[in-house]
Amino acid sequence: MQNYPLGARSAALLRQTIMPPTVFVVSDGTGITAETFAHSILSQFNMKFKLLRVPFVDSPDKAYEAAQRINAAGETQGSRPIVFTTLVDSVSNSIVKGANALVLDMFQTFVEPLEIELNIKSSHEIGRGHKDADSDEYRGRIAAINYSLEHDDGQSNRNLADADVILVGVSRSGKTPTSLYLAMQYGVKAANYPLIPDDFERGKLPSGLAPFRDKLFGLSIDPQRLSQIRNERRPGSKYAAIENCRYEVNEAEQMMRRNGIKWLSSTHKSIEEIATTVLQEIKIERATY
Amino acid sequence: MQNYPLGARSAALLRQTIMPPTVFVVSDGTGITAETFAHSILSQFNMKFKLLRVPFVDSPDKAYEAAQRINAAGETQGSRPIVFTTLVDSVSNSIVKGANALVLDMFQTFVEPLEIELNIKSSHEIGRGHKDADSDEYRGRIAAINYSLEHDDGQSNRNLADADVILVGVSRSGKTPTSLYLAMQYGVKAANYPLIPDDFERGKLPSGLAPFRDKLFGLSIDPQRLSQIRNERRPGSKYAAIENCRYEVNEAEQMMRRNGIKWLSSTHKSIEEIATTVLQEIKIERATY
Repeated sequence: MQNYPLGARSAALLRQTIMPPTVFVVSDGTGITAETFAHSILSQFNMKFKLLRVPFVDSPDKAYEAAQRINAAGETQGSRPIVFTTLVDSVSNSIVKGANALVLDMFQTFVEPLEIELNIKSSHEIGRGHKDADSDEYRGRIAAINYSLEHDDGQSNRNLADADVILVGVSRSGKTPTSLYLAMQYGVKAANYPLIPDDFERGKLPSGLAPFRDKLFGLSIDPQRLSQIRNERRPGSKYAAIENCRYEVNEAEQMMRRNGIKWLSSTHKSIEEIATTVLQEIKIERATY
Repeated sequence: MQNYPLGARSAALLRQTIMPPTVFVVSDGTGITAETFAHSILSQFNMKFKLLRVPFVDSPDKAYEAAQRINAAGETQGSRPIVFTTLVDSVSNSIVKGANALVLDMFQTFVEPLEIELNIKSSHEIGRGHKDADSDEYRGRIAAINYSLEHDDGQSNRNLADADVILVGVSRSGKTPTSLYLAMQYGVKAANYPLIPDDFERGKLPSGLAPFRDKLFGLSIDPQRLSQIRNERRPGSKYAAIENCRYEVNEAEQMMRRNGIKWLSSTHKSIEEIATTVLQEIKIERATY
């Protein structure tokens, strides 16, 4: 076989399969947003990457350390790494840009055209992305997380009037993760309330929910998938049996239709997609940034 | 006063104060990452913006609707809007780029140099950012959220060996939001355990934690701030009194030092900053993307 040399392209692909290219995300803050963004860009390429976040690079010294780490990775893998930067400080930024790598500058690329458009200079202050513990935004977010925890799974009817949204659906349809995500990401007070066989027998929504019809949003789920999920928690139970899951899902969907509650199926959706649809449908007012 | 005409710059600033510029985030997915990213870029400018997310723009028709909405906003505000796009489909993307706006293309700007560097074409497939409910990544995330909820506030000693990290600290030092964030964002199984006066009197860590010394990470907080937070929940209680908060914080910090537990003060940190430091210090293995 060694008589048939690989083409340059095949060799590159082979190397990438053996040792995925290293991608650095260099940030003066946490770099979480940049990492998520880089992940989504990289997912456009059908190959694996080794993604490394380098947070809190808030001085030229740390920028220099980061550049050395990038160069070392390049030497190890035998090709130059990919680097996403979001450094606000121009000195640190130029140090990282000096590394032997493909450097994609996620900050300057967009700040420059904005400065021209808005006709004002940007502040170049570090750490303005996340609000810290003294801000109203932060307090609102913590209050929403506490609210969602206290109003998880119909635990409390107290202060339901304060909810921005109340998710309803059968047990294990995805209400808890969605509520917590809405609270964490958006400071939205999201309660959630299960629809259970008692409700189906009575043929009515839980009585505590009646005054809040316009805040209700329903989650449903494919019965097969529901049965799988419930079996992981209570193997072989009636609760997890496929016939029971079919019954509950069918009853819950009918109840939501009868009551004019908007709902979606969570079966093939991510938490982010469900949360986005909830915000669109319930039309929750967002703050001006 | 009307005899002194405003300079062009002052007029622009005045207009921006009265009516903040509209910024659209147009995405074929949820647009949550792009919105967070846009927010962090915009926070570099000392002015207000009206940030509108336009999600699920996954067809030329919807792109055309989005473009019309952008143009209408521009006419209302009397200046062209700012648009961040992350559209994978090039037809839809060019439709939005045709709007009368400053369009910042967060997708193509980075995909093009990556295609050249990696010597492969990107897939241009929509919705590859978030993993849906059938993926291992998604199941891991849900499992981590459930784990963190079940191991919130020392509720259970069962399966503590499965934890990736166990946060410790006095009540209301930020353990719960941090645990949930680690689970939600990173699929990290984060338990949390309170340090309470009983532990300080015995002068020992809660006994259930002893086998997991290397997974412990501590959160502390400024006593003054702790007293404020506790007073919101239990006004006038001994629990919230400043002397008691000083005592608990002091004892907890001494206990963490004695046991060689790494810790930080959450007082001036965002949830993201705390989570990032925890991941760095505990050196939790992250998957290759």
